[in-house]
Amino acid sequence: MSRLSSQHLLGLENTPREDITTILDTADTFREVLERTIKKVPTLRGITVLNLFYEPSTRTRISFELAEKRLSADTISFSPSTSSVKKGESLRDTLQNIEAMKIDMVVVRHSSPGVPYFLTQFSEANIINAGDGSHEHPTQALLDMYTIRKKYGKLDGLRVVLIGDIKHSRVIRSNIWGLKTMGASVALCGPATLMPYNVNEFGCDVYTNLDEALEGADVVNVMRIQLERQQAGLLPSQREYTKLFGINRDRLKRLKRNYTIMHPGPMNRGVEITSAVADSNKSVILDQVTNGQAVRMAVLYLLRGEEEEGGLS
Amino acid sequence: MSRLSSQHLLGLENTPREDITTILDTADTFREVLERTIKKVPTLRGITVLNLFYEPSTRTRISFELAEKRLSADTISFSPSTSSVKKGESLRDTLQNIEAMKIDMVVVRHSSPGVPYFLTQFSEANIINAGDGSHEHPTQALLDMYTIRKKYGKLDGLRVVLIGDIKHSRVIRSNIWGLKTMGASVALCGPATLMPYNVNEFGCDVYTNLDEALEGADVVNVMRIQLERQQAGLLPSQREYTKLFGINRDRLKRLKRNYTIMHPGPMNRGVEITSAVADSNKSVILDQVTNGQAVRMAVLYLLRGEEEEGGLS
Amino acid sequence: MSRLSSQHLLGLENTPREDITTILDTADTFREVLERTIKKVPTLRGITVLNLFYEPSTRTRISFELAEKRLSADTISFSPSTSSVKKGESLRDTLQNIEAMKIDMVVVRHSSPGVPYFLTQFSEANIINAGDGSHEHPTQALLDMYTIRKKYGKLDGLRVVLIGDIKHSRVIRSNIWGLKTMGASVALCGPATLMPYNVNEFGCDVYTNLDEALEGADVVNVMRIQLERQQAGLLPSQREYTKLFGINRDRLKRLKRNYTIMHPGPMNRGVEITSAVADSNKSVILDQVTNGQAVRMAVLYLLRGEEEEGGLS
Repeated sequence: MSRLSSQHLLGLENTPREDITTILDTADTFREVLERTIKKVPTLRGITVLNLFYEPSTRTRISFELAEKRLSADTISFSPSTSSVKKGESLRDTLQNIEAMKIDMVVVRHSSPGVPYFLTQFSEANIINAGDGSHEHPTQALLDMYTIRKKYGKLDGLRVVLIGDIKHSRVIRSNIWGLKTMGASVALCGPATLMPYNVNEFGCDVYTNLDEALEGADVVNVMRIQLERQQAGLLPSQREYTKLFGINRDRLKRLKRNYTIMHPGPMNRGVEITSAVADSNKSVILDQVTNGQAVRMAVLYLLRGEEEEGGLS
Repeated sequence: MSRLSSQHLLGLENTPREDITTILDTADTFREVLERTIKKVPTLRGITVLNLFYEPSTRTRISFELAEKRLSADTISFSPSTSSVKKGESLRDTLQNIEAMKIDMVVVRHSSPGVPYFLTQFSEANIINAGDGSHEHPTQALLDMYTIRKKYGKLDGLRVVLIGDIKHSRVIRSNIWGLKTMGASVALCGPATLMPYNVNEFGCDVYTNLDEALEGADVVNVMRIQLERQQAGLLPSQREYTKLFGINRDRLKRLKRNYTIMHPGPMNRGVEITSAVADSNKSVILDQVTNGQAVRMAVLYLLRGEEEEGGLS
Repeated sequence: MSRLSSQHLLGLENTPREDITTILDTADTFREVLERTIKKVPTLRGITVLNLFYEPSTRTRISFELAEKRLSADTISFSPSTSSVKKGESLRDTLQNIEAMKIDMVVVRHSSPGVPYFLTQFSEANIINAGDGSHEHPTQALLDMYTIRKKYGKLDGLRVVLIGDIKHSRVIRSNIWGLKTMGASVALCGPATLMPYNVNEFGCDVYTNLDEALEGADVVNVMRIQLERQQAGLLPSQREYTKLFGINRDRLKRLKRNYTIMHPGPMNRGVEITSAVADSNKSVILDQVTNGQAVRMAVLYLLRGEEEEGGLS
């Protein structure tokens, strides 16, 4: 039924280039749908999608729910609070129950890596990972790649710098796998205390000096810094992070002329990025949000949509 | 696209008489739809509406969500908790993100006056104010006016008394502007400590004595008193408020014979209004709720509905 | 309009055998719908259903919401937090407001027995009890009975043991009334401290010894034990409960050969039931969840569905 090589989207580490290309190409079609007055197609009519967000989320949940409704799916959103989960049953029982209700697709976010994969073990539903701990957040990376490809017409050969908490960021992790699969050159930059021990195995250039990392790059993708890390002793102070790793206008001189600024949001303005940069004409931060609609519609469609049910008409 | 003079409904202060009349007339049509077995029309099919309630709300959120679904819109409801908002991004970034997702209409409630207007600065969506701080709550006032007009056949020349916290009540504020625009005579009554400093600029008769305020009036619209004001030192005690400003049967003798009792809810029974009055045959409190459906459907339709998409059929 | 003898489903105590049979027969039809690729029928198109859950709930809320959407109803879900209810209006005013919004059906869960009945006093909507205090939870009992009947082809003459907190369990109470109406023989088993004072009036065999209760039974329906009862001094300890009333493999020898294990979920694995039993081939615990979809669709359909609106096609 799926038009991809898997019936799930769990991460980009093992997603082949053909699948990523198919998703990005299909997203182009949905990007056009979003320019219409009526931004809705009947592709998933009669299909039920459960949005199961164990971690609080605003934009990702709204983005998925909108994408599902624009495909005419029936959606149920459920955000278990931590307390009720503690009182409740095992995760396995919850997931088996969801399967028993014969839900067609599940979009899941959880603080533990591997929960989306775990869900596939009990379920015939199509599972989409909307972020699992520090593991992956594949639709965010896909929309980042879509946004880059839309501007440059390609990903192959571009130099992309990912800046932030390399150790804990699932957005960075998904970007690394996706960008490398698509032929981009990836640089990582962040504090040494926030580097994973095996960072050298990622096949990326690794920097703890921002200016060196930016040298000759096309795209800078700035991650939100989790100020909670400071309490854990992994960050010196917000002020020092900003001084060493914050993106401001001066820093951008080292980039290629036709450079691009990205951020997955929500931004800490004045911390990891200045407003002058975030709101400049090189910034595609709001395009990322719009493109996220198109990419998520594409993923949902490719995993489940029936051609004979109306397709993309 | 809008059939009103604005593509938003931010408040009634600057809404012209023609718009209010159009809304009330259109609500008549939807009031009939609500008497059908199937209370649904295809008017907003394919349109997405975000209900963004930063303040907790029961009835207003349900009322809007129902109205949207009865117009066949796709709805997404989002109630950010205060804590997540604190951790999160700036309001401006949130609003820009919503715009980037290409949502068609936004119904917004926020504790800060001006947030709905602020949203129009970033958005091509139609914005409907569902209450912004102490500023306005226009659909509540419109449904109040609709309810009065339905009973008396007119608003012109009627005497309406608004009782409560004149300083902080957005319902009172919207009622003042709307009623005056439609030719009604408006009296305000409440404790002197809860009067705004510029109350004389409103063009209303102002009373701190309830009996004087009620003299010869047609309609009494009683506001919920926020018991939290007492802690702020603005209210002596609940008991004293009830004694001085509470509506009970004795008080009503000074009204015109064919008088009407209103309350936007939720009621503090026994505080600002007795049950005997609230449940009497002069009370239209539950009619207000039903009419709210019709008025909200009318506003949503007038701002966005396409005639060729099915209209009111 | 209702195809049952009542326009509400408040409990099974007074539901006649013909109604239960009609519900179970109709559920068979919907059980087949759930095996289709598109598990959706147009039966409740244009009908609005409010899911009003005053008590937190995961699976019951999702199950109802899914059932409603699969019948093409428009759904609104509202889970008032305890705090907002405290600040707010009286339950009666809330319920009258819901009625005034002309909602067609209300699925209600509340910690106080009788709230669903109370709601019928103000409302022309069809009311479905999704659990009211220690009173009843009729759809759970109906899905339990459906699951038994599906396996044995009948309910008449079967011996069903209900194990747990007999005093407080609404699931047990609904099962007692339903099973007895359908001709099953019912045994109750639990700690003496958790027996209602009038347990002998239920017309069931009552046991405080598990082995005696299980002797010769066909079906064992194990209830979740509320560990909160321990703090109230009604339970000795979790360990002692497990020792005396926990279901494990050894215990099952006394049952009939073709026995069945049930649990309404969520399970405390290792407390009231071992995983070996819960996951055995005699367990129908996940079938209960699937059948719950069919039974809830049947109840919603029978109370409201219009034949001419598309029926079960």
